[in-house]
Amino acid sequence: MEDKAQIQEAIKSQGEVVRKLKSEKASKDQIDEEVAKLLELKAQLGGDDGKHQFVLKTAKGTRDYNPKQMAIREKVFNTIIGCFKRHGAETIDTPVFELKETLTGKYGEDSKLIYDLKDQGGELLSLRYDLTVPFARYLAMNKITNIKRYHIAKVYRRDNPAMTRGRYREFYQCDFDIAGQYDAMIPDAECLKIVHEILSELDLGDFRIKVNDRRILDGMFAVCGVPDDKFRTICSTVDKLDKMPWEDVKKEMVNEKGLSEEAADQIGEYVSMQGGMDLAERLLQDQKIHVVFDLSLARGLDYYTGIIYEAVLTQAGVAPVTAEAQNGAPGEESVSVGSVAGGGRYDGLVGMFDPKGRKVPCVGVSIGIERVFSIMEQKAEASAEKVRTTEVQVMVASAQKNLLEEKLKLITELWNAGIKAEVMYKKNPKLLSQLQHCEESGIPLVAILGEQELKDGVVKLRVVATREEVHH
Amino acid sequence: MEDKAQIQEAIKSQGEVVRKLKSEKASKDQIDEEVAKLLELKAQLGGDDGKHQFVLKTAKGTRDYNPKQMAIREKVFNTIIGCFKRHGAETIDTPVFELKETLTGKYGEDSKLIYDLKDQGGELLSLRYDLTVPFARYLAMNKITNIKRYHIAKVYRRDNPAMTRGRYREFYQCDFDIAGQYDAMIPDAECLKIVHEILSELDLGDFRIKVNDRRILDGMFAVCGVPDDKFRTICSTVDKLDKMPWEDVKKEMVNEKGLSEEAADQIGEYVSMQGGMDLAERLLQDQKIHVVFDLSLARGLDYYTGIIYEAVLTQAGVAPVTAEAQNGAPGEESVSVGSVAGGGRYDGLVGMFDPKGRKVPCVGVSIGIERVFSIMEQKAEASAEKVRTTEVQVMVASAQKNLLEEKLKLITELWNAGIKAEVMYKKNPKLLSQLQHCEESGIPLVAILGEQELKDGVVKLRVVATREEVHH
Repeated sequence: MEDKAQIQEAIKSQGEVVRKLKSEKASKDQIDEEVAKLLELKAQLGGDDGKHQFVLKTAKGTRDYNPKQMAIREKVFNTIIGCFKRHGAETIDTPVFELKETLTGKYGEDSKLIYDLKDQGGELLSLRYDLTVPFARYLAMNKITNIKRYHIAKVYRRDNPAMTRGRYREFYQCDFDIAGQYDAMIPDAECLKIVHEILSELDLGDFRIKVNDRRILDGMFAVCGVPDDKFRTICSTVDKLDKMPWEDVKKEMVNEKGLSEEAADQIGEYVSMQGGMDLAERLLQDQKIHVVFDLSLARGLDYYTGIIYEAVLTQAGVAPVTAEAQNGAPGEESVSVGSVAGGGRYDGLVGMFDPKGRKVPCVGVSIGIERVFSIMEQKAEASAEKVRTTEVQVMVASAQKNLLEEKLKLITELWNAGIKAEVMYKKNPKLLSQLQHCEESGIPLVAILGEQELKDGVVKLRVVATREEVHH
Repeated sequence: MEDKAQIQEAIKSQGEVVRKLKSEKASKDQIDEEVAKLLELKAQLGGDDGKHQFVLKTAKGTRDYNPKQMAIREKVFNTIIGCFKRHGAETIDTPVFELKETLTGKYGEDSKLIYDLKDQGGELLSLRYDLTVPFARYLAMNKITNIKRYHIAKVYRRDNPAMTRGRYREFYQCDFDIAGQYDAMIPDAECLKIVHEILSELDLGDFRIKVNDRRILDGMFAVCGVPDDKFRTICSTVDKLDKMPWEDVKKEMVNEKGLSEEAADQIGEYVSMQGGMDLAERLLQDQKIHVVFDLSLARGLDYYTGIIYEAVLTQAGVAPVTAEAQNGAPGEESVSVGSVAGGGRYDGLVGMFDPKGRKVPCVGVSIGIERVFSIMEQKAEASAEKVRTTEVQVMVASAQKNLLEEKLKLITELWNAGIKAEVMYKKNPKLLSQLQHCEESGIPLVAILGEQELKDGVVKLRVVATREEVHH
């Protein structure tokens, strides 16, 4: 327990940090993060009345979705699910936590980012890190050898969050996978087709799909003189090329992973090669797609065994641009703004779960939806169009007092007819406040009840935008 | 570590348990549970080759949803979301875990069932136990004083699972809540209306909505001589009346909670009273609804402050009937088969989060969807109709060899036109196996390509059910 005076001192200086950021008009996320620290300090101190002070925040790296964000999320999911269904996929769901040993040995160096549950007696559990390993567990457990399925759910990584860039500790993955022994390249090509369809439909601007193959990477590592037992760990370092300059990647290979300088330099030459690829274009039967073969694409996870791919948005300014990317080489024609989809072939993963090691070849793709949300939210804010958060079609209103019962009768009729309708939860609301609510929520119609209308057995219907009125 | 011989002995006897259950045609859940134990024992032993053996199972009290279950789940959710939207609700989402202290002091005795995350450095976190407390935290954090929102998400309780009865450790809640200072009873009545609409639409058979009020319960406790500081803990015991006979409830009150025998007996008299209630009927404006005022209804959670309600299915045989219920009093006209919805008013919860204690009155309802799923699954199994797990409209097939490229061209055209279509991932599949796939998956149409059709620039379209064919 720290000394009270010390905490008060810390609160004072943290308060200045927040004030400074605000005066500099720093990003909301940055300010929020510092405010959270301030609140935590204040909570340590406790209230003057001895009452416990809550820290009002969500867990680090997580966020709530407000109704506006949910409306955008629903739209994006509908696009993605529509594509998955168009391609004939079924869907499954798995629990948010798995037995700890189910996740052990699947993620290589990333395993340290797995959230474990506290041992409260019983099984040792961990939160899922992706949807691929639970999918493989599901296939092995149910002895399924053929399935095309999608799965949309949240996954958990104790990573360093960067919320402004759409990097969270709790985030959605939208996975599409094809399991089964099929003829070469046909399911793999469908996965690329799906990435192309979804990114085009979401209208996020130009994108590029990088393609590589783990077997080519392994061949390259062998040629460069990387020892066999270092293939996966060097692969994991190559994967950082989109976030770090080559010099730092090389340093990690040589200093941390113990690779020889010559081997690292040779890798450096190979990974700088990339270019168009006729084969991929032919497979996709689509001239518009920007598919490039890129030897620097490695993917961080251990379980890939064949083709790997990653889609990046190439239009600067649309997506949240990182500070590093902004300071990147000026020679590049466009700045890469981060991966929005990725995947590959993993033919060995299901066999790791099968007691007899029976393999089920799989290939799949995961849409990194959080960055898509960030972009869509920015677009919505920039646009003049208001995002509606309900679908209410009619507001049932009253012009005079004491009409609550009549209004409830009318709205019940509307609900029974499947019409989305609202009424204010007041006995005698003012007509003006009822109309204002319609304007604020974008409700297009208002049904106004009055003594005269009740006598005549009619309802006055007003179009909110034009104030046009008709009797029904 | 146990001795190898001991484990082998345990495996042998557990094997017999499983064989016995199978020969007795025990329920799938029961067999699965014993098989899981057997697998765990086998895993302890390890493979003969020293290779680690995985326990292929989901965590205790959780389950996967297969595609058929997902199809049913989607249908149920669409009904529920449709109702929430019809009533003009917005939706929000919150993270699956909260700061531990956010959940502290909200659930009374049930707090021991909260899942904690392991302390891996940083904040202390817990999995959400319901959606109500995160909702209250969200309102206080964002200073929202008026909202009508729904939230559908999984919650987590380390309870004793009873999977055959639809009781899981990970389960969905579908919550609808109205926050705000409004005129008495209007939002409360809408919550009851929503329960009625959803249970009617889901067509689960007869149901009854029990209504009570925490203030009446507290008054009753006072009259019976329960000390003030025992109100909540005695309330929590009364709540067990739907699972335990009165004798056991009384025993818990007297022996565990230290209540006097006289006070307990007086409570026993009150809670046996229930009956129709004109007021509720008038409020709901619906003669068909079975609303009863029931003094034995208490609800387990601490945070309710006013009206509370719970909906139970009353049609025996439709829902999974518990062993206890089957052994219940034969005099009852119908056997209660468990709660499918519940909720109430909680005017103090948001104030617990607000630094200044500002209150936001709330009332809400939670649909217990897992039992609904169980019933719907049983119905689907009993019915002859096949549940489709995809929405594929057309299968693109070939009558001859070497037509893969032509098929991919055609299916791309279909996909681009928004048509849900499938093709087999084989270069040269047999026509018969393509047609068989249509029958199995319920795909209504098949587009058959052949040399002749390609020459003529047409497609042969066959209706799978009737084998009728047309050229397009």
